[in-house]
Amino acid sequence: MTETSGKIVLGPNQYGKAENRVVRVYRDTDRHEIRDLNVSSCLRGAFDDAHTIGDQHAVLPTDTQKQTAYAYATLHGDGSIEDYGLALARHFVDDIAPVDSARIEIEEYAWQRVPVDGVGHDHSWTRVGPEVRTAAITVRGTGSGRREWVIGGVKDLVILKSTGSEFAGFLTDEYTVLEPAQDRILATSLVARWRFATPPADWDAAYTGIRATMIATFATLHSKALQQTLFEMGRAALEAYPCLAEIRLSAPNKHHFAYDLGRFGIENNNEVFHAADRPYGLIQATVQREDAPDAGIAWDPYTGAV
Amino acid sequence: MTETSGKIVLGPNQYGKAENRVVRVYRDTDRHEIRDLNVSSCLRGAFDDAHTIGDQHAVLPTDTQKQTAYAYATLHGDGSIEDYGLALARHFVDDIAPVDSARIEIEEYAWQRVPVDGVGHDHSWTRVGPEVRTAAITVRGTGSGRREWVIGGVKDLVILKSTGSEFAGFLTDEYTVLEPAQDRILATSLVARWRFATPPADWDAAYTGIRATMIATFATLHSKALQQTLFEMGRAALEAYPCLAEIRLSAPNKHHFAYDLGRFGIENNNEVFHAADRPYGLIQATVQREDAPDAGIAWDPYTGAV
Amino acid sequence: MTETSGKIVLGPNQYGKAENRVVRVYRDTDRHEIRDLNVSSCLRGAFDDAHTIGDQHAVLPTDTQKQTAYAYATLHGDGSIEDYGLALARHFVDDIAPVDSARIEIEEYAWQRVPVDGVGHDHSWTRVGPEVRTAAITVRGTGSGRREWVIGGVKDLVILKSTGSEFAGFLTDEYTVLEPAQDRILATSLVARWRFATPPADWDAAYTGIRATMIATFATLHSKALQQTLFEMGRAALEAYPCLAEIRLSAPNKHHFAYDLGRFGIENNNEVFHAADRPYGLIQATVQREDAPDAGIAWDPYTGAV
Amino acid sequence: MTETSGKIVLGPNQYGKAENRVVRVYRDTDRHEIRDLNVSSCLRGAFDDAHTIGDQHAVLPTDTQKQTAYAYATLHGDGSIEDYGLALARHFVDDIAPVDSARIEIEEYAWQRVPVDGVGHDHSWTRVGPEVRTAAITVRGTGSGRREWVIGGVKDLVILKSTGSEFAGFLTDEYTVLEPAQDRILATSLVARWRFATPPADWDAAYTGIRATMIATFATLHSKALQQTLFEMGRAALEAYPCLAEIRLSAPNKHHFAYDLGRFGIENNNEVFHAADRPYGLIQATVQREDAPDAGIAWDPYTGAV
Repeated sequence: MTETSGKIVLGPNQYGKAENRVVRVYRDTDRHEIRDLNVSSCLRGAFDDAHTIGDQHAVLPTDTQKQTAYAYATLHGDGSIEDYGLALARHFVDDIAPVDSARIEIEEYAWQRVPVDGVGHDHSWTRVGPEVRTAAITVRGTGSGRREWVIGGVKDLVILKSTGSEFAGFLTDEYTVLEPAQDRILATSLVARWRFATPPADWDAAYTGIRATMIATFATLHSKALQQTLFEMGRAALEAYPCLAEIRLSAPNKHHFAYDLGRFGIENNNEVFHAADRPYGLIQATVQREDAPDAGIAWDPYTGAV
Repeated sequence: MTETSGKIVLGPNQYGKAENRVVRVYRDTDRHEIRDLNVSSCLRGAFDDAHTIGDQHAVLPTDTQKQTAYAYATLHGDGSIEDYGLALARHFVDDIAPVDSARIEIEEYAWQRVPVDGVGHDHSWTRVGPEVRTAAITVRGTGSGRREWVIGGVKDLVILKSTGSEFAGFLTDEYTVLEPAQDRILATSLVARWRFATPPADWDAAYTGIRATMIATFATLHSKALQQTLFEMGRAALEAYPCLAEIRLSAPNKHHFAYDLGRFGIENNNEVFHAADRPYGLIQATVQREDAPDAGIAWDPYTGAV
Repeated sequence: MTETSGKIVLGPNQYGKAENRVVRVYRDTDRHEIRDLNVSSCLRGAFDDAHTIGDQHAVLPTDTQKQTAYAYATLHGDGSIEDYGLALARHFVDDIAPVDSARIEIEEYAWQRVPVDGVGHDHSWTRVGPEVRTAAITVRGTGSGRREWVIGGVKDLVILKSTGSEFAGFLTDEYTVLEPAQDRILATSLVARWRFATPPADWDAAYTGIRATMIATFATLHSKALQQTLFEMGRAALEAYPCLAEIRLSAPNKHHFAYDLGRFGIENNNEVFHAADRPYGLIQATVQREDAPDAGIAWDPYTGAV
Repeated sequence: MTETSGKIVLGPNQYGKAENRVVRVYRDTDRHEIRDLNVSSCLRGAFDDAHTIGDQHAVLPTDTQKQTAYAYATLHGDGSIEDYGLALARHFVDDIAPVDSARIEIEEYAWQRVPVDGVGHDHSWTRVGPEVRTAAITVRGTGSGRREWVIGGVKDLVILKSTGSEFAGFLTDEYTVLEPAQDRILATSLVARWRFATPPADWDAAYTGIRATMIATFATLHSKALQQTLFEMGRAALEAYPCLAEIRLSAPNKHHFAYDLGRFGIENNNEVFHAADRPYGLIQATVQREDAPDAGIAWDPYTGAV
């Protein structure tokens, strides 16, 4: 590392309005539909003067971005978060001169109809979670230079298997005291994000299918490590969905320790566990196609940045 | 208010081990079952010396209470949280001499089997929420002086209806600017706790049925206020379940404000809303039978106290 | 427990607007002052019709309560949260006919001036925490029947001592494996709430002094148990402040476990600890004067209720 | 976007143990010192087999990484988090064969001595926050190929100025309804991270000084936008600390809206505000030296990744 004395300049920068809690109800018939969203918009472009001399002439207020997010929920909101995000991002790039690229990050909270006499109610729901569907749409440039990237995903998908998981044969050193485990609980709170190589026929169906493919793989694969499980989950999704270029997975290993009851004369055959909070293993991996198109700025974050 | 100079003494006190994250797997067959619990134990009794002179002879360590919670998950954990809590509370009152009464508070997190080829998997699940089942069991005294109280409940039950709710005809004063609403979103994150007058045939079935009754009432009742909705939800549950003595409900009015898009020339027919965080209305009510048995110390809190 | 069939009726109920984030700046001179509050108002009274028949004629909207909280921040907000809460509570009881009693719960977030060249800046601050000052004011009745209760407090006061704490001589049973500790870390995140018997000369000074007295006692007392420490903290505060009737303390025992490094040939003389999250001991006690005036409904909660 | 059919392969991956809650007490004299840390370790290297064939021969367990973090707290923990992180990272790269690079992310929670009779107590402290000091150390390669990057930082630094901030002259479009503001509250919860070009003489002093420089700039600069304020904060820090290569800042614009009290006949001269939760503006910028050394993989995240 070497001390430097160079001129101090502005580097990469971006700004927007984060966490607009947009709820869109569809009331075309008595059987309503609902989309419950958390929308963040981010603009990049010719905003140097705002930083270096405090001149706002090129800055579209974040309040304006908020108004736009709600307005577009009416005009373009009757569908998937991917389509809604694309509409918003294209608008900012096309219609706001200083904007070079725009990124829209969306969370969607799921609702299910209240059952009444065995039938889902027309306009009443309960929230379903903890998992949250996510999307991150980036649009850059106009005309023939236009590039678009769509990332779908899920987060806080808590999944557990009570057998069919081992961890053994690992590297050891002088600080290693862990015993190999032949039968353990494997649990995680998955964050998965998949980049589309091409738009699927139906964004919502793709979400449902990718999620289902991954959790079925988690269930049925005998796990030799969380690393292996993640790789196979990603591979299964890529195989089932040729529209995908890559999947990034981040998975805390939510440790469940078999509780020592032997000292009380009680046998514990992997039946009673302590679910620990911290620390946790944290495994992250990308599964991708060798010929995947360039990711460009698809993964450049906004709300998760710095 | 008047200044006082009386002797300073110890008042009500209690202690225990909070938030033991007990996970109980049933592996009697290849088709496992799982109970995922957060267990808090609380003891009351002759613990004055621990406070006033630092003498611990009567204090059963909170670590011991933890060990007991895990041990009892094996011995008595093959069923409902109410039965498990009763076993734990009775143990502390019966077997630990200084204990006059014990309270066990439990949260249960729900899991659903991963669907694989249309069938729920034997040993893999995803978490379901955000709602959490709760129980609070209090046992006091021994022999003929024994009293037991069981409270079941649910919390974080997020429920919304997109029509069928109004709010009008209210009291006004010089600070009132709210306009009456004929058609609004009604949404809450319900906390409901019901005290049993007598044990039901099946604790788990009672939970499922009480919850279902309440949300069906929320869905089908045309609401003139959240107060009315809560009262009718409680009444419906009490009517359907004679084993219940009372229900306490706490419900934030999670405001969804119709977004003003008219200034942009966009019509908003109650289709686009902003979901606000704070402040929120907070409505609390008890629905009870006139001849309900005495609540005694059933509602004296532990983890929610002070 | 016995099944009942009595008439289903409305029991205790209350409502209000929770968590109004009121920020009050004083700009009378260039040296500003700031009060950063979270204000919840709660009304009790003749609101039965709102529940049982959906008639809102007696219901002052929670939106009106919000407006009032902000309005009163101007008119009555130039001082302590206790005085502001009293003004708000008296208003609701005096001026809104159906209201029998009102409760105002307030959190205050502390700020300290940014140091610039060694001097606190006139109008710039950083937040100080994690501790939060609290107040709960209850006013019931009018005229000669008027009663008022004021509770002050602090929450999330995280305090730790790295020696001067032991835990030994405790009760044991068949589930006890804990070893006595002669020298351990004692740490908690304290919630303390004190009820005033009479108003102090200066609410703000009382807060500062009570807090200082308690933490000094925590520091200097050799602890034989968290129970003893809490009792002595409360006693010291009551002795120093005759205006107090009682103090309620709730204290998680934030366990710090000496880490087992001996297996790596490293000596650990109570120098390296693991700070555990859950479970935690949870100790709660009241310290009070024998001749303290009646607490009445002073402790009936609102935002923490059910 | 184009559909692809290439071979599915493992991409970038990393793993470790996150959030080890290491507390280090120094008891060399009766006047103790304390370091309260949250430590995450991350390894990158030849771990393909763990993913693709479930072979763990190269995988050092995350449990071992945990043991190492606690062990190193004894051996190397008597100083700054930057030095401790460097020791840990170098160990993993030097001593664990499959490791190409290691990243250590640390949060440090601050404590201040309890004042007793005007003097800070020897072994009792209260936590100070909400701000948290951070560090992220990356070491790659061995011998002459060794590279090391150190990032220091602070997060959750909540700062507010009650005047001296405007926002005007901005770009408008058909969704712009915001009025220019000549005098507003400016508040944020800052995340700042600075990359060192060269090690400072004293890591702790550098932290204190960089933080102080930034908040003094926030206080004294008349702000024309949060963008400008961030840039000047970063520039001031770089000017004062030649050892820094760049600073990245992420700042939510925590909106404080002047409350409309005019409708109640109450004048509000920027004295009563509503502190809003969501949405919020979110401004992010980098300030850097033109001749800063290559950032390499310094910014590649671990716990914040995906």
